[in-house]
Amino acid sequence: MQEVPSPGIAFSDKGFPPEILNFRKATWYQPMQLEELGEFGFIARVAPACRIRDRGVVKGIGDDCAVVSMEGPDHLLVTKDLLVERVHFRLEWGSAENLGAKALAVNLSDIAACGGVPLDAFVGLAIPPGVDVEWLDGFYKGMTDLAAEYGVNLLGGDTTRSKTDLMISVTVTGTVPRDQVLFRHTARAGDLVVLTGPTGESAAGLEILLRGVPVTTELAQELIHTHLRPRPHVKEGRLLATSGACRAAIDVSDGLLSDLGHICQDSGLGAQLYRERIPVTRSVSEASGLLGKDALHWAFNGGEDYVLIAAVDPRQWDSLLDASRDAGCELTAIGEFVTGSEIVLQTAAGRVTPLTPRGWDHFR
Amino acid sequence: MQEVPSPGIAFSDKGFPPEILNFRKATWYQPMQLEELGEFGFIARVAPACRIRDRGVVKGIGDDCAVVSMEGPDHLLVTKDLLVERVHFRLEWGSAENLGAKALAVNLSDIAACGGVPLDAFVGLAIPPGVDVEWLDGFYKGMTDLAAEYGVNLLGGDTTRSKTDLMISVTVTGTVPRDQVLFRHTARAGDLVVLTGPTGESAAGLEILLRGVPVTTELAQELIHTHLRPRPHVKEGRLLATSGACRAAIDVSDGLLSDLGHICQDSGLGAQLYRERIPVTRSVSEASGLLGKDALHWAFNGGEDYVLIAAVDPRQWDSLLDASRDAGCELTAIGEFVTGSEIVLQTAAGRVTPLTPRGWDHFR
Repeated sequence: MQEVPSPGIAFSDKGFPPEILNFRKATWYQPMQLEELGEFGFIARVAPACRIRDRGVVKGIGDDCAVVSMEGPDHLLVTKDLLVERVHFRLEWGSAENLGAKALAVNLSDIAACGGVPLDAFVGLAIPPGVDVEWLDGFYKGMTDLAAEYGVNLLGGDTTRSKTDLMISVTVTGTVPRDQVLFRHTARAGDLVVLTGPTGESAAGLEILLRGVPVTTELAQELIHTHLRPRPHVKEGRLLATSGACRAAIDVSDGLLSDLGHICQDSGLGAQLYRERIPVTRSVSEASGLLGKDALHWAFNGGEDYVLIAAVDPRQWDSLLDASRDAGCELTAIGEFVTGSEIVLQTAAGRVTPLTPRGWDHFR
Repeated sequence: MQEVPSPGIAFSDKGFPPEILNFRKATWYQPMQLEELGEFGFIARVAPACRIRDRGVVKGIGDDCAVVSMEGPDHLLVTKDLLVERVHFRLEWGSAENLGAKALAVNLSDIAACGGVPLDAFVGLAIPPGVDVEWLDGFYKGMTDLAAEYGVNLLGGDTTRSKTDLMISVTVTGTVPRDQVLFRHTARAGDLVVLTGPTGESAAGLEILLRGVPVTTELAQELIHTHLRPRPHVKEGRLLATSGACRAAIDVSDGLLSDLGHICQDSGLGAQLYRERIPVTRSVSEASGLLGKDALHWAFNGGEDYVLIAAVDPRQWDSLLDASRDAGCELTAIGEFVTGSEIVLQTAAGRVTPLTPRGWDHFR
């Protein structure tokens, strides 16, 4: 695709009847803003018209990946994530390598959440002035190093200019045996709420990046690294998918409560979590003390953890736990799915309080 | 993925040892700029490291689509295009509907160039302040209307904020029978250079948009429409792929000469074109007179035509032409592939001049 000439050429609408250009000029009209709808309201608004045909579609809009039926025993998974400068990241925060790795990692995490094996990646880059070849070399090094860990090819994409911000668009395909796909809508009451890793470290790292407050170098490095270079839980996703014990899964991008809320809503369930089982790491606990923040808030609403939340059949929990130890995965049961629609927290003393997700909505 | 907080929160690097953030602060160092490499130089630089494994890859970086072998008789095609505000389009030029349709059309055109049938689309949108719900409704209407024409689902994607410019990232998958894939590198000397439609109208429309010069309303509407709402030549691509007569193909996005140059370079050939066979439409001819521009320059270097260039076995040209008439396609042979590496133009009087592609390079 070609670029339009530089802004030095002034645009003039002289001589154009308005029907050519469809200017909207009525100043009295107040169109609806995205903030009113919210991200999920917007998706719900456009989704119905997006389904043109049913053939081949196992799952469309509304899961971590689209799931497409192909010939052969596997379904095709497709996921796509955008990272926009000054919205999702700032260039001065981290190395190009970390950013390249993260842009791929968040997509591998979506494949993991569906129980799949990642296949190929496609990278779109809109590059502003000032981003030079050395930076891009680092970006691709970070991305291809991570890709090599997972046997994923970078098979193509698009590279173009941008006027101000760097934009990264990554699409990843994957495959998963038909009977192993993990959806969000298939949890059952009584299933355990299982995490494949702790949450909150990424949020603590972000807080340190944003506020630059004095914590020890070692602590800052550890938490910032978790934020800038998350590990996609592909191994854990495959363990869950092949175990036969897992009924639903999602990855934690917006926040534990927010993403657990998606499983609850799509499965028509609530969840009860146990305070003493929420994994708060020593680093998160230490940083929360130094920064005067609530560690549990980070764990529940921090986001960008890229661990998986799984709904696990309680009768198969022990055998899954054994298998997870053999595979080097660390699963923790933090509660259970229940009838209803609320997510509540029960303390060791037995007190029950409702939890409200405060995860991220891009338009609010 | 979560957003970083608003720019209201100032970033401070107090207390950080430099190894945490990897600032590059040496002012004496002049890193290589993208302009020095050019778009295709940059792609050639990163491509080797992007191939992690060979299994499953029929064609990686360097064709209109990536071609992936799957179980079953068809290959999977994947293509991805970015459209960035103020680089590829300006919002004031056209309706949201046209832009939505075009963002999909340019990807369908890549599927067409490989001879494929489009399957599903995935849409990433980074939305700046000021783009409201009504505009987005129009954008999705344009996109889904075109998707419906081709039986293509919009199966997912990502929607997020941007600080300044609208960015659109569309990925389209498709399928093509293994023995029908059209590549760029498989033309042979003696093959005809065939166009599936005229070139130059889009460039004339862009010129009118940019300069706002007085041409008749009817002429402006026609040419601007071609620029803003291109038709992907999916039908033509399938005709070529199923005919057995076509040996290579590409779509015209950067410009006829530039894209023909890709076939030539990848196939190790040159091409000889005939001046009197280059299709210059009445509209292009008329606009070129009114705007004082060379119609042939538009036809050769204009770009964004989204017709296909095909290499056709001359012995099968007559039967392909018959089939194309039955299918409602308009094929024109404008020259032939020859040994060597130059593209030359021969006039009716027999004079031969070399042609230099002046198509678009995003980084030059």
